[in-house]
Amino acid sequence: MTGISQHSFDTVIRNAHIATAADTYTADIGISGGVIVAIGRDLFDGREVIDARGRFVTPGGVDAHVHLDQPTSDGSKMADDFLTGTRSAACGGTTTVIPFALQFKGCSLRTAVEEYHVRAAGKASIDYAFHLIVSDPNEAVLKDELPELIANGYTSIKVYMTYDDMKLDDRQIIDVLACARIHGAMTMIHAENSDCIGWLTERLLAAGLTAPKYHGESRPMMVEREATHRAIALAEVSEAPILIVHVSGREAIEQIHWARGRGLPVFAETCPQYLFLSEDDLSLDGFAGAKCICSPPPRDKANQQAVWTGLQNGLFTIVSSDHAPFNYDDPNGKMLHGANGSFHQVPNGIPGLETRLPLLFSEGVLAGRIDINRFVQLTSTNAAKLYGLYPRKGTIAVGSDADLVIWDTGNARTIRNEELHHAADYTPYEGREVRAWPAITLSRGTVVWADGEFYGRAGHGQFLRCERPAVVISHPKTAVATI
Amino acid sequence: MTGISQHSFDTVIRNAHIATAADTYTADIGISGGVIVAIGRDLFDGREVIDARGRFVTPGGVDAHVHLDQPTSDGSKMADDFLTGTRSAACGGTTTVIPFALQFKGCSLRTAVEEYHVRAAGKASIDYAFHLIVSDPNEAVLKDELPELIANGYTSIKVYMTYDDMKLDDRQIIDVLACARIHGAMTMIHAENSDCIGWLTERLLAAGLTAPKYHGESRPMMVEREATHRAIALAEVSEAPILIVHVSGREAIEQIHWARGRGLPVFAETCPQYLFLSEDDLSLDGFAGAKCICSPPPRDKANQQAVWTGLQNGLFTIVSSDHAPFNYDDPNGKMLHGANGSFHQVPNGIPGLETRLPLLFSEGVLAGRIDINRFVQLTSTNAAKLYGLYPRKGTIAVGSDADLVIWDTGNARTIRNEELHHAADYTPYEGREVRAWPAITLSRGTVVWADGEFYGRAGHGQFLRCERPAVVISHPKTAVATI
Amino acid sequence: MTGISQHSFDTVIRNAHIATAADTYTADIGISGGVIVAIGRDLFDGREVIDARGRFVTPGGVDAHVHLDQPTSDGSKMADDFLTGTRSAACGGTTTVIPFALQFKGCSLRTAVEEYHVRAAGKASIDYAFHLIVSDPNEAVLKDELPELIANGYTSIKVYMTYDDMKLDDRQIIDVLACARIHGAMTMIHAENSDCIGWLTERLLAAGLTAPKYHGESRPMMVEREATHRAIALAEVSEAPILIVHVSGREAIEQIHWARGRGLPVFAETCPQYLFLSEDDLSLDGFAGAKCICSPPPRDKANQQAVWTGLQNGLFTIVSSDHAPFNYDDPNGKMLHGANGSFHQVPNGIPGLETRLPLLFSEGVLAGRIDINRFVQLTSTNAAKLYGLYPRKGTIAVGSDADLVIWDTGNARTIRNEELHHAADYTPYEGREVRAWPAITLSRGTVVWADGEFYGRAGHGQFLRCERPAVVISHPKTAVATI
Amino acid sequence: MTGISQHSFDTVIRNAHIATAADTYTADIGISGGVIVAIGRDLFDGREVIDARGRFVTPGGVDAHVHLDQPTSDGSKMADDFLTGTRSAACGGTTTVIPFALQFKGCSLRTAVEEYHVRAAGKASIDYAFHLIVSDPNEAVLKDELPELIANGYTSIKVYMTYDDMKLDDRQIIDVLACARIHGAMTMIHAENSDCIGWLTERLLAAGLTAPKYHGESRPMMVEREATHRAIALAEVSEAPILIVHVSGREAIEQIHWARGRGLPVFAETCPQYLFLSEDDLSLDGFAGAKCICSPPPRDKANQQAVWTGLQNGLFTIVSSDHAPFNYDDPNGKMLHGANGSFHQVPNGIPGLETRLPLLFSEGVLAGRIDINRFVQLTSTNAAKLYGLYPRKGTIAVGSDADLVIWDTGNARTIRNEELHHAADYTPYEGREVRAWPAITLSRGTVVWADGEFYGRAGHGQFLRCERPAVVISHPKTAVATI
Repeated sequence: MTGISQHSFDTVIRNAHIATAADTYTADIGISGGVIVAIGRDLFDGREVIDARGRFVTPGGVDAHVHLDQPTSDGSKMADDFLTGTRSAACGGTTTVIPFALQFKGCSLRTAVEEYHVRAAGKASIDYAFHLIVSDPNEAVLKDELPELIANGYTSIKVYMTYDDMKLDDRQIIDVLACARIHGAMTMIHAENSDCIGWLTERLLAAGLTAPKYHGESRPMMVEREATHRAIALAEVSEAPILIVHVSGREAIEQIHWARGRGLPVFAETCPQYLFLSEDDLSLDGFAGAKCICSPPPRDKANQQAVWTGLQNGLFTIVSSDHAPFNYDDPNGKMLHGANGSFHQVPNGIPGLETRLPLLFSEGVLAGRIDINRFVQLTSTNAAKLYGLYPRKGTIAVGSDADLVIWDTGNARTIRNEELHHAADYTPYEGREVRAWPAITLSRGTVVWADGEFYGRAGHGQFLRCERPAVVISHPKTAVATI
Repeated sequence: MTGISQHSFDTVIRNAHIATAADTYTADIGISGGVIVAIGRDLFDGREVIDARGRFVTPGGVDAHVHLDQPTSDGSKMADDFLTGTRSAACGGTTTVIPFALQFKGCSLRTAVEEYHVRAAGKASIDYAFHLIVSDPNEAVLKDELPELIANGYTSIKVYMTYDDMKLDDRQIIDVLACARIHGAMTMIHAENSDCIGWLTERLLAAGLTAPKYHGESRPMMVEREATHRAIALAEVSEAPILIVHVSGREAIEQIHWARGRGLPVFAETCPQYLFLSEDDLSLDGFAGAKCICSPPPRDKANQQAVWTGLQNGLFTIVSSDHAPFNYDDPNGKMLHGANGSFHQVPNGIPGLETRLPLLFSEGVLAGRIDINRFVQLTSTNAAKLYGLYPRKGTIAVGSDADLVIWDTGNARTIRNEELHHAADYTPYEGREVRAWPAITLSRGTVVWADGEFYGRAGHGQFLRCERPAVVISHPKTAVATI
Repeated sequence: MTGISQHSFDTVIRNAHIATAADTYTADIGISGGVIVAIGRDLFDGREVIDARGRFVTPGGVDAHVHLDQPTSDGSKMADDFLTGTRSAACGGTTTVIPFALQFKGCSLRTAVEEYHVRAAGKASIDYAFHLIVSDPNEAVLKDELPELIANGYTSIKVYMTYDDMKLDDRQIIDVLACARIHGAMTMIHAENSDCIGWLTERLLAAGLTAPKYHGESRPMMVEREATHRAIALAEVSEAPILIVHVSGREAIEQIHWARGRGLPVFAETCPQYLFLSEDDLSLDGFAGAKCICSPPPRDKANQQAVWTGLQNGLFTIVSSDHAPFNYDDPNGKMLHGANGSFHQVPNGIPGLETRLPLLFSEGVLAGRIDINRFVQLTSTNAAKLYGLYPRKGTIAVGSDADLVIWDTGNARTIRNEELHHAADYTPYEGREVRAWPAITLSRGTVVWADGEFYGRAGHGQFLRCERPAVVISHPKTAVATI
Repeated sequence: MTGISQHSFDTVIRNAHIATAADTYTADIGISGGVIVAIGRDLFDGREVIDARGRFVTPGGVDAHVHLDQPTSDGSKMADDFLTGTRSAACGGTTTVIPFALQFKGCSLRTAVEEYHVRAAGKASIDYAFHLIVSDPNEAVLKDELPELIANGYTSIKVYMTYDDMKLDDRQIIDVLACARIHGAMTMIHAENSDCIGWLTERLLAAGLTAPKYHGESRPMMVEREATHRAIALAEVSEAPILIVHVSGREAIEQIHWARGRGLPVFAETCPQYLFLSEDDLSLDGFAGAKCICSPPPRDKANQQAVWTGLQNGLFTIVSSDHAPFNYDDPNGKMLHGANGSFHQVPNGIPGLETRLPLLFSEGVLAGRIDINRFVQLTSTNAAKLYGLYPRKGTIAVGSDADLVIWDTGNARTIRNEELHHAADYTPYEGREVRAWPAITLSRGTVVWADGEFYGRAGHGQFLRCERPAVVISHPKTAVATI
């Protein structure tokens, strides 16, 4: 190429060891206007040049299961809002988050969306979209609000099969699925059998068993398995694709494996807590187990292995954080009912937005369990495709936003909550060593994290209107495996 | 980008609607020296410019299961050699073929490779690599020849569980698998239970049932299922990855589905004949069914559907042609024993190299059964990855060979053998309509097919030394799903 | 035995080819006081002697799923009461029936039992017990009524997952299961997902599709499969044994097969309608399909075969009639809403009490699908064991009631409703030929059917207090397979 | 019955708590001429009267997998001949044994049978039949010897998939199965993949790993699973029923569960060693693990549980001992190659004929895992039916041989080899406590064991000509579940 003058871009990342969902190769990336405009070798000049020699460059993470500043009905308060949440995300390599606009029963879904925009306004340092939690699928919601919201860029819906303030019955779920199918939205389902949990909880309480570890006993695997099977059947009846969120272990996996074997468009998500935490973490002395109370609960080691296998063999479509941050030592957090509160009254959720990618890169890619293309699929590309953000987000390709992570994989680093950037007062991964961390994170071409410093700006993050996901529009004709 | 001078490349393909195994986006592709050197928008100038506006551009097909000029032991003669075979491939959008160097029992494998190079020399118009058929895994083969050949770029081995002149017993298969595992080769297995076929064939013959349709009855699904289960077990014992070739239907699929659910690195291939042909084609009047005699035989419609589902849900890794061309009206071909020859004496195989991609693009992508990324995975990228040709082959990325197909998807076209470029005297797809065909095929930047004309040159095709496949080296740590 | 005087009994059946659930042998049966007191060869004398030479003698049938004179909530009226129902049973070889005492929502279960005794009083010609349908498991029912009723001989409970007037939610089902488990009752579950049926029905009605055949489309297999899986999970949570009633086909069978493979005490019942009727019978011209409207609906032929396989391989525990007789040409029956009534308003159920044993003996035993011991298990012994009537009922053994059937298996006979003894105006098996029919039926030693004549007497039939079933008491320690 | 004189029989067992494969009831049993001639209450008088009040009386055990005085090809010698073996059986409640007449390769099967009769002659104290081990299914065997032997009362065949001196290839197995199917014999299959075992053994030996515990590593579960799947397929191809002998754990069970779900007539046997021994017993210090070397090897605790579940849910048809007794401290036994012999040279097998019934009664029936009817099925009735000895053997019914066990279930007893009656110098169950043991064993009405004394007589035992098993004749029409 000698003798040919080079283009000049805003930014050029040189010698990037680029990894996408399918490809791995070395090239320079030319960025202008926040967008990737060219990929080549020794071709481009840039006003800013970043040398990535020897380093993997991946698409920025898309965390499609995040709770930020979400209102609750029990008096608890989430530790992170859009300011601290997106900051934490950026520092951990995530450049897009999709938190949930929650409809309370009896309230308007549209209003919920509007109010959630207010919470987000001016605070986000990375881009964001909204999922819609439908907890009251009345006629107005099904006939007016949902179709309009879907048309306006809110193309994913979440429904709950448990939690009294949000759960839908089977008929309501079918109604939502049918609406989503017709109008082109993806539906996420929290699959646990509420009545079984209620009955088991009553028995535990009656026996005086209230410590955090009994949280696990109140929601055993069979409770998740049953709801997973039912969710699949409801999707089959309504001919809608679904994603089962936060799958925790073998029995639920087997149901999904069965469904996929039949060709049903059933997608599955898991989370780091099902790979790295276990029932042992729920059983710590005193109340400390409450730090790991989330639903479904972390299972045993054999189930962890089953989840890893599901990452390896293609069963899982995405790995999300299910970041739901509550302070531990806080009367608005895990100690809502004090340090002796019963397991069933502890706010559910753990913080994990910042640690998601480093944990999976370290224990997945570097430990040889999955390759880097699969890592990109699971943490970025597939989420972008599932929720209508692709190709703007989720890949390194000409025309895509320059949301990028340049990885430091050379050095071991111990996770310390004091070094994280969320607002929660603990991380369940305290003391765990990882061997990968973002060296630099770019959001639309702008460096938001580099050399251990956050450079992001509140308000840089933009709201993303989501397209109708291809998989929803094309179902049942298009492939399950290809998002 | 106005005001910035453009690079000049050998060739630029403008406005390509690029589809890779993961991505779909529109850009220009800059090619120099037969290699893709840049991808961008409105950036490049070329000595030759091809406008692909409105057209999909995919990586050229990699057909990883092809028999060309392969010696036989029954007196039959294949219709295609490297000249006609690679010509036919290019005209159908395939830019890499991997035929088989066959060791006869009692002979040297190394010699078989050398002799096969002689058959290929100067004839190929597209690039090619060799698989090794091991039919006599004696100590010399296991200790010397295979390790040396693998090190020299022959990194895939095929073993047969049936056919008297090639079949191995379980111990021999384990020995080959263990050798492949240690030295870094992928093993392909033809899975049918030879003894069952022999017993059933004897009974059919004893009953005077010799028509072509009895070929199917002599090799029922259970015979393939058993061998598939056994192949998986042998791989499990030897801790080696395997690929089950030409999977024909549901029962074998279920075994593979089970294996993948357990996280075993078991890959699977199917072929157009299991998607587009059925037992009805074996049952045509007179001897015509012999045209579709191949093993395993085409099954019923329900099995066709099961194979489609396997394409959709990720079970299958690749779609190959298993091109094994014998003339129909020919004493060296299907009529080796005359027009009344018994099914068990008819040479096995059908031609399909040229029609593979158009059939799958048309009935897969355009009919909405799979999306175009999955098409690229199945027909190109995954084969390149499985057999150590990636990233040189199998994708559209900077640094990869400019093996490309620009698709004409606007016009219906009826398959006629007289319009195909192989040397066989029939196609089993005669009269079938497809809605996609390559408009232009490029091999390393050179146009080899355009506007219905073959522009390839015998000798342009180069022999490809294969790398050790990543999946073999990394197993069992790396993911099944991610090749 | 020469020289030894013989006992004299009330009745001796000589040369009986006795078949029990396990054994087949030839002997004389000595009966006194309505009870079998001896079995031997050439040993006994009797005041009455019946020569059964060359004929099978089996235990009288126990039909454990029968609706007689059961009140309805839609204005329909069952065709059979205890008089005609038990008469019909006796003529078909059934000597024990277990109909249902139905609690209406808001009413007392105890009262329902008392009222049902009034309906039965003085009418039954064979013995009977009651199952309890719990449709309102309020605290009084769970704490007082059920424990007391169980203790008093009502040791089986039925719950519905569909039908608005009877269905329970998951929590209510668990509550009933837990109560049954503690107090020692068996629970039967009607497994269909009510919300799915409701949604599908609405869509069919909205499309104007109201003919009888749409009954099947409103309750597809997946709806039954889901509820079956859920029922199993609820039983697993509550650690209670269950029986899934009237299983209709493959997908539900697979769930039960899975559960039994895990060792769960899940029993299954099927009915003649799933062996002998199909969706074709629902699709007869005009309104005639309404004759075969029952839930779950008859499926296709492949599902019939799956049910037969389930009889053969031990999956099914019992075959019951689910006799729910409504006249066809009757404004209180199938034509409740006229001859053009929508499928969803047609009273569900078909008559089948009299034909159950002849159909199964003919097509099962004589056609070689099952042997006669399995026939006895399925139609008599297992029901007696499951519901606490064994060993008084369900076998031919010393000490058991002399409820016996002497079979005529030599002659073909065409089923004609005019020759049946129920009160319904049709049989769905009209015109079907069977090759077996009871020659003689004895109830506690008394002939109630012989030579084509009914000799029974209203009031001969006694109410049977059921024991706590062994399988309930012993679970989870005792075997699934051994009732 | 007052006023009616009673019959006088040879023997009357009064107040027996009779348990058969299906029934449990209390009655007197009248025996004359070694046969049960009447069952009744207070009806009979006997020259000999045994009062069984409060005691279970079951059919005598039929042990269908026993090696007695069987010639070997490695220089080892079995510890038990027909004299000590049948004595040991009788003392443990077994009244029929079916050892194996072994054809050596190259020898006549008929001659093998004749020679085995010589070994048995005059020694047996209980009745016996012969299975035929076919290790050389040449044309003479298939065309002449097997048909003739089957017709003459040798109606069961065993084939091996492993052991060099006995194993058949797939074709040979199909030939035997087809012959058995046509002539009416049941085929037993020892299912382990010989080539896998050979390869694993070589690797272990090459690594110097020769201790007894490596026996287990040389024959892992997958090796048994593969062969089980293959055996099922061979049976499917040849349309023959089979019994998989000595199934050891979950993976093989799953294959059989799958086959039975499809309705295939695949029966399964397990043995006490898979319920009561584990890999821990193979890992004892020094050479002691050799005492428990048998094939398949005892697995882990989870597999033990899987086998128990298989007893409970009907998967297993029979429990046999696989009694293959070699002395431990003996150069003709386990120490054939000395106390440091490699695992692969240790004679395979353990003694277990006498302990089979007490162990299963104690830990199965008394521990509540299975009920007594299931115990009778598994240990007596089903074997008699499978192998053509029913109804002469295997039940308590009029006309059957008076082979009976009267149980002492009140007292704990510690198993001590010195108290057993076989000739082996150890029992693997040394020190284990059981809570059941036969108080009295009768063989054809004669007491052979009572009050801790053996009263049997060499020569009392008769050779039993077996009928063609009903299940073989009727297949595929008759039920799997019903033997």
